[in-house]
Amino acid sequence: MPFAAQWDEQKHFPVEVLRKAAGLGFGGLYCGHDVGGSGLSRADGAVIFEALAYADVSTTAYLTIHNMCASLIERYGTEDQRQDFLRELTSMDLLASYCLTEPNSGSDAASLQTTARRQAGSTDYILNGEKAFISGGGAADVYLVMARTGEAGPKGISCFYVDKDSKGLSFGRQEDKLGWRSQPTSSVILDDVRVPERCLIGKEGEGFTIAMSALDGGRINIATCSVGGAQFCVDAAQGYVSTRKQFGKAIIDFQNTQFKLADMLTKVQASRCLVLNAATALDSKAPWASASAAMAKRFATDECYNVANDALQLHGGYGYLKDYAVERYVRDLRVHTILEGTNEIMRVVMARHMIKSQA
Amino acid sequence: MPFAAQWDEQKHFPVEVLRKAAGLGFGGLYCGHDVGGSGLSRADGAVIFEALAYADVSTTAYLTIHNMCASLIERYGTEDQRQDFLRELTSMDLLASYCLTEPNSGSDAASLQTTARRQAGSTDYILNGEKAFISGGGAADVYLVMARTGEAGPKGISCFYVDKDSKGLSFGRQEDKLGWRSQPTSSVILDDVRVPERCLIGKEGEGFTIAMSALDGGRINIATCSVGGAQFCVDAAQGYVSTRKQFGKAIIDFQNTQFKLADMLTKVQASRCLVLNAATALDSKAPWASASAAMAKRFATDECYNVANDALQLHGGYGYLKDYAVERYVRDLRVHTILEGTNEIMRVVMARHMIKSQA
Amino acid sequence: MPFAAQWDEQKHFPVEVLRKAAGLGFGGLYCGHDVGGSGLSRADGAVIFEALAYADVSTTAYLTIHNMCASLIERYGTEDQRQDFLRELTSMDLLASYCLTEPNSGSDAASLQTTARRQAGSTDYILNGEKAFISGGGAADVYLVMARTGEAGPKGISCFYVDKDSKGLSFGRQEDKLGWRSQPTSSVILDDVRVPERCLIGKEGEGFTIAMSALDGGRINIATCSVGGAQFCVDAAQGYVSTRKQFGKAIIDFQNTQFKLADMLTKVQASRCLVLNAATALDSKAPWASASAAMAKRFATDECYNVANDALQLHGGYGYLKDYAVERYVRDLRVHTILEGTNEIMRVVMARHMIKSQA
Amino acid sequence: MPFAAQWDEQKHFPVEVLRKAAGLGFGGLYCGHDVGGSGLSRADGAVIFEALAYADVSTTAYLTIHNMCASLIERYGTEDQRQDFLRELTSMDLLASYCLTEPNSGSDAASLQTTARRQAGSTDYILNGEKAFISGGGAADVYLVMARTGEAGPKGISCFYVDKDSKGLSFGRQEDKLGWRSQPTSSVILDDVRVPERCLIGKEGEGFTIAMSALDGGRINIATCSVGGAQFCVDAAQGYVSTRKQFGKAIIDFQNTQFKLADMLTKVQASRCLVLNAATALDSKAPWASASAAMAKRFATDECYNVANDALQLHGGYGYLKDYAVERYVRDLRVHTILEGTNEIMRVVMARHMIKSQA
Repeated sequence: MPFAAQWDEQKHFPVEVLRKAAGLGFGGLYCGHDVGGSGLSRADGAVIFEALAYADVSTTAYLTIHNMCASLIERYGTEDQRQDFLRELTSMDLLASYCLTEPNSGSDAASLQTTARRQAGSTDYILNGEKAFISGGGAADVYLVMARTGEAGPKGISCFYVDKDSKGLSFGRQEDKLGWRSQPTSSVILDDVRVPERCLIGKEGEGFTIAMSALDGGRINIATCSVGGAQFCVDAAQGYVSTRKQFGKAIIDFQNTQFKLADMLTKVQASRCLVLNAATALDSKAPWASASAAMAKRFATDECYNVANDALQLHGGYGYLKDYAVERYVRDLRVHTILEGTNEIMRVVMARHMIKSQA
Repeated sequence: MPFAAQWDEQKHFPVEVLRKAAGLGFGGLYCGHDVGGSGLSRADGAVIFEALAYADVSTTAYLTIHNMCASLIERYGTEDQRQDFLRELTSMDLLASYCLTEPNSGSDAASLQTTARRQAGSTDYILNGEKAFISGGGAADVYLVMARTGEAGPKGISCFYVDKDSKGLSFGRQEDKLGWRSQPTSSVILDDVRVPERCLIGKEGEGFTIAMSALDGGRINIATCSVGGAQFCVDAAQGYVSTRKQFGKAIIDFQNTQFKLADMLTKVQASRCLVLNAATALDSKAPWASASAAMAKRFATDECYNVANDALQLHGGYGYLKDYAVERYVRDLRVHTILEGTNEIMRVVMARHMIKSQA
Repeated sequence: MPFAAQWDEQKHFPVEVLRKAAGLGFGGLYCGHDVGGSGLSRADGAVIFEALAYADVSTTAYLTIHNMCASLIERYGTEDQRQDFLRELTSMDLLASYCLTEPNSGSDAASLQTTARRQAGSTDYILNGEKAFISGGGAADVYLVMARTGEAGPKGISCFYVDKDSKGLSFGRQEDKLGWRSQPTSSVILDDVRVPERCLIGKEGEGFTIAMSALDGGRINIATCSVGGAQFCVDAAQGYVSTRKQFGKAIIDFQNTQFKLADMLTKVQASRCLVLNAATALDSKAPWASASAAMAKRFATDECYNVANDALQLHGGYGYLKDYAVERYVRDLRVHTILEGTNEIMRVVMARHMIKSQA
Repeated sequence: MPFAAQWDEQKHFPVEVLRKAAGLGFGGLYCGHDVGGSGLSRADGAVIFEALAYADVSTTAYLTIHNMCASLIERYGTEDQRQDFLRELTSMDLLASYCLTEPNSGSDAASLQTTARRQAGSTDYILNGEKAFISGGGAADVYLVMARTGEAGPKGISCFYVDKDSKGLSFGRQEDKLGWRSQPTSSVILDDVRVPERCLIGKEGEGFTIAMSALDGGRINIATCSVGGAQFCVDAAQGYVSTRKQFGKAIIDFQNTQFKLADMLTKVQASRCLVLNAATALDSKAPWASASAAMAKRFATDECYNVANDALQLHGGYGYLKDYAVERYVRDLRVHTILEGTNEIMRVVMARHMIKSQA
């Protein structure tokens, strides 16, 4: 927290601090103890990431993505892959990035065009394509790349573990973003990148299922980051209006301020409840887990952004200045309604589940 | 459920059906087994009342008020009072009403003016005053009346168990309400009503504490009635749009319909989570239980009303007709944002808790 | 206004009062003076209907429908038809109903199935079909019926002036509605109803264009009825909170009350401005007039309903009683978001215009 | 417009471009032709500033402040002051800043503490104090300073024209803001600044009236800047979704996108109508002009910010990047709900008017 403003200002990716967090067990929350993980549940993770995001949304959000990658290998990797890959990830000696989105395939992820083709007479895959908006792009050491090995659509996609030093792997310029500035974002360009067979995670054609499964947890984590950030904003706003005086009394003594704070806290608490509800559903592999994750992500990221925005308003003119943290939280939370599936896609996921349940 | 529309239309108070519900244990959910109660928790109650309200909001809401009265005696009554009063309440041989509000004291309940004065040379109390908006008024057999025995303000109030047949007790005309029509509402007029000392619940001066404590549970129950009613509305709307066709396809096949349904369900689920969260807080006597109950009541009653209103819209012109149930749910849910503490008062309760917590 | 509650309660259609209104010129606002009309503009009408709806939304809303019918003949009728039909309509000696919607064709009006077929050897048309949700159904003397004379879709529809006494014309039962109770609503059943050629309004195949054109004005008028009703609700709420005291002061002295009233008035004023803007566009035959009417209708009917709902809340428990007018306004305004094109269809109209404008 | 992104990025205050705008008559819109002004009405100004803000909100917003200062002298200055001061302002050879807010007096402007005291034996005033959040601070040549010449409260305040080169006038550091980055903002520090009597605008004690009167126009102008910015966002979003394809079709072909665009345009249009309504009220000196200006400012700045935020969402991940203009509009519009009277103060102004009107 003490450095969050500086990291935002200087676009500094605090790798050393992330490694310290990994030292506390936060690098592989959902991985087994045998590979250095913490063996915790999604519900545990929601509590932890909320607390971390309270201090710094952007850095915590990257940490959740790293955990999503590690968890993906934990669940879909072979035992050899677990042993080979996870130790360095849980310790965060290596940082991971999740590569699904492409310039022309965002919401419609299943239409991705990056290819992975076997070369004649080799078990290696040759990857070609471009991934967009990759958190950690250029800085991370490992890229989990979804690429097409087969037919068009979701069933022709596979998941690969790609080393940063692979020949043919390069990165676009660092994106200049409204927020999430303590983590780099860039495109990832694959130009005849050779990936050995042992880096295929899961089977050929399972990539989309793996990617979506990872996103269930990822969405819960993004939602919990929104909750943490919004709770900070409620506290910051309450602190400000408790000391700021106008018309001869503290602003908090005005009824509108009190009602606004009450509504803000309610939004945060409702978000938190939905997130825990979804995390528990995911932990128990409930059939509605994906729909619950989508619901929690949609609601929490929308409402918590509104809370941050209200907190800025309660700060008056000071809220508009970078001297006060709240404008950074507004900027950081803004992207949560967009990434890991836009909130519009969340509604698609929910509606599909509702229709299927009734049928 | 099959009679709900008829009871609404005819303003019929289904006492026999309520007694059948009591036969299933729903007349004294929070009372001990020794007095015929079910010995359940608030969290249990939230699940039960949600299911009942799904079928008929208005009748269930009265049932929650009856339970609030029984629970009040369970917790604040002496052992003699428990044994004397509760058996007939848990069986619903006698129906109870909660009498706090007065024509000039609604949100500002502590300013109530009904008096209870000891007569010289007697241990009896003589009650005088008027209570307003009393659910069950005129039909119920027992009235739990908050009356002033001492100083102005909350500390001068006591709680009395008043028999319907008491001399001097009368009732105003039945109110003609927008909804909640399967339960009678009237004013309760106390004109020199004599109440023996053994009908004082708790000590003198404890009445306001008792009344507010009862409301914590009452608010959770009203909120859960909103959840049940709104869940019905989601299901009814989904059913309607699945069969209604326009422009050559079912209305549910339009994206706006799907997104709307998804948002409606999200509101219901967020409400449900907050209610269970508050019920659990109350069960565990958490210091934030009152604030949590206020939060759940505010959010659930507002959002579930919006859901019902959206469900009416999804029904198009048919939603405006009494042939379809949804307009009744809209009317029934409308009052939940007002009673057992308006949602404005809920915000006051929450803000007070926030300020106290920070201090 | 003094009878509005009674008419609502008793489902009384105040024909005599409507005729008195016609005596003041309100029966044919947009018709020429030569046929007894007032020759006013849409902008004039918006002001007049707002004032009338302030007193009684339901009755005024029927009046706007009658005017929509008269205006339709004014604009699309032949000079003979104007002279033959309009005098009795502008005086409201005859009341008119607009018959477009069918049980299976609401939003998708162009798919209507009522037929009008020429009989061999006759110039008469024979109409068969059923119209639904017809305001004035059973009470009105004249029915403007859209029926299919040709191909499927909008281009095969024609508009007919049908006399109530026509053989084969009958009416379904009176609908039991949430609001709009001072005007009857029923289905209109056409069973081999013979209509002479001189009762065809416009040409064959022009019916859908005529019906939609009438709706542009109709939507503005429904919107203006919402504005009038909501303005009443603001005033009623302000009056109530100015006299109602709690916690030792008038409720209006609480900041939340003041802010709420300010927001309510803002919604009414924004609605009023959009309505006048659309009326002016229609008066000047601007190419965006239909889109403006849709915009005004969508916004005003949604926001003014919210205002009425907020006004009910400000009345506390009293707002839920029929003794206070505000619950009637809530019920009456509720249908405005549905009829004359649902607010979802309004968005379709707007979006279509936006796309066409950019192309 | 072509430089707006660059000015934002580099915090460049485009003085030369502002002077070119003045060459077109935009430096003294409301001033008389005799002093180089354009002699236009508030309604004219709303149209002009909307068009300019469409291209660059931040720069236009400063221009409106400059015009507010010039207009203030036009209306409250003596003929000598008009002739002496306005020519250089209308040509923007000199730029003006409006100095009302202080670190401890924002919403409660009447409590300002900056003093202006007459020195014994001199007609000069000596000003001491600090002004905060001054647009143009440090860059502008002229500062219109509200300072206390008399009693506490609004009646002891006077208005002074202060030259940048005055001895004792200095500036705090440039504030680092979320938006409005093409105009400098700093505190203005007055340390024994000597101001000759001829620089007193209006009479002693009239300062608060003058300041508030200026704000009526200022609020309309800020509102119109919001309208212009939001209209740009609607157009940008429509453009983006018309070309961006997902799931095999342009995003605009999804119903949710169309409905969202329709709602966005409706918010902009309602805002525009309210602004023009208020401008007309101000032009005609209607007694409700201040309330109308407050209403327009509150509604337009809130809703247009929401529109910009929705436009960002419609851009998906690209909306979060500085390559696309929409995130800049979001940042620029954010402050409009805060400055020239927060939107909470706008509600106070409206409510006060409502109460007074009813009394």
